[in-house]
Amino acid sequence: MEYVAIVLVLVLLQYTFFSIMVGKARGTYDVNAPAVTGHEIFERYYRVQQNTLELLVVFIPGMFLFASYVHALTAAGLGVVFFIGRMLYYKAYVNDPKSRGIGFTLTFLSAHVLIIGGMIGAVIKLL
Amino acid sequence: MEYVAIVLVLVLLQYTFFSIMVGKARGTYDVNAPAVTGHEIFERYYRVQQNTLELLVVFIPGMFLFASYVHALTAAGLGVVFFIGRMLYYKAYVNDPKSRGIGFTLTFLSAHVLIIGGMIGAVIKLL
Amino acid sequence: MEYVAIVLVLVLLQYTFFSIMVGKARGTYDVNAPAVTGHEIFERYYRVQQNTLELLVVFIPGMFLFASYVHALTAAGLGVVFFIGRMLYYKAYVNDPKSRGIGFTLTFLSAHVLIIGGMIGAVIKLL
Repeated sequence: MEYVAIVLVLVLLQYTFFSIMVGKARGTYDVNAPAVTGHEIFERYYRVQQNTLELLVVFIPGMFLFASYVHALTAAGLGVVFFIGRMLYYKAYVNDPKSRGIGFTLTFLSAHVLIIGGMIGAVIKLL
Repeated sequence: MEYVAIVLVLVLLQYTFFSIMVGKARGTYDVNAPAVTGHEIFERYYRVQQNTLELLVVFIPGMFLFASYVHALTAAGLGVVFFIGRMLYYKAYVNDPKSRGIGFTLTFLSAHVLIIGGMIGAVIKLL
Repeated sequence: MEYVAIVLVLVLLQYTFFSIMVGKARGTYDVNAPAVTGHEIFERYYRVQQNTLELLVVFIPGMFLFASYVHALTAAGLGVVFFIGRMLYYKAYVNDPKSRGIGFTLTFLSAHVLIIGGMIGAVIKLL
């Protein structure tokens, strides 16, 4: 479970990095709080953070469920795939929103393999 | 705990369904990323997903706390109430935002029974 | 772990309070769902809730990781710091967004001490 904890924290720190970049983009593109619109590039940074938040709500319980009911080290490995996918997603979205597909797919798939795998593991344990 | 895990994953998959419907509504109503406004019906799909995200942050730890400190099978049952409430909420919000009350109430109440029940269970264990 | 559970629920109830204040501000400043813009003061209440949501995704797993790998009672104490910091943040943001710094810093730091401390505890356990 220790590897799961370590990878989970790295993913959360990556998410904090995205949040800090949103704050920085507020200054660069002159979008003052509480506004979250007003400049196309600022909105890209904001959407990266928001989309990551939206997916973390699936990913975080997925890590615990997969690690508990299937295999902890495989959960940690899927977490590494999520981390790499989000970094690709971030770089692509900021440069060109239309190119964000690969990074999105890697993170979407790893998060859903975690929850669906965890559910299958729980069902098997019940049988 | 296995039933809790299974119901939790079903709720997360329902949330993913709401996210996919937002993506679909982007196409149907021609609202390109990173914009999240621009068409009333798109904004309804988007608000369903966002409101679900906002409540999952209460619901998910609530499932674990209630299952740990009170009763696991009751936690799973409250999770089923949450699932049904969110489906009603989704259908009502998309058709007419003013009719979303019943679905919202079912999910709000079940999520808060989970966390408050879990807290009471933890307090009793301390006594 | 019981103290961790109790503080976690208090933080979640505080977050629900922020959500209820957003609903109330919808009425006061006449911003009908699904809109989330249209009045500066409404947007402040909304940003308090959204920023809290954004940070809870770090704080909640941080409470569990720090409690599991470092020290449960210290985790609960950091949770109390988070709670107080968020209350200051809420009051400051609604009155004047530029004064929200202290409350934000207290919550940002406590959440990150929780996850980074939890990661260090997991690394030490592996050695």
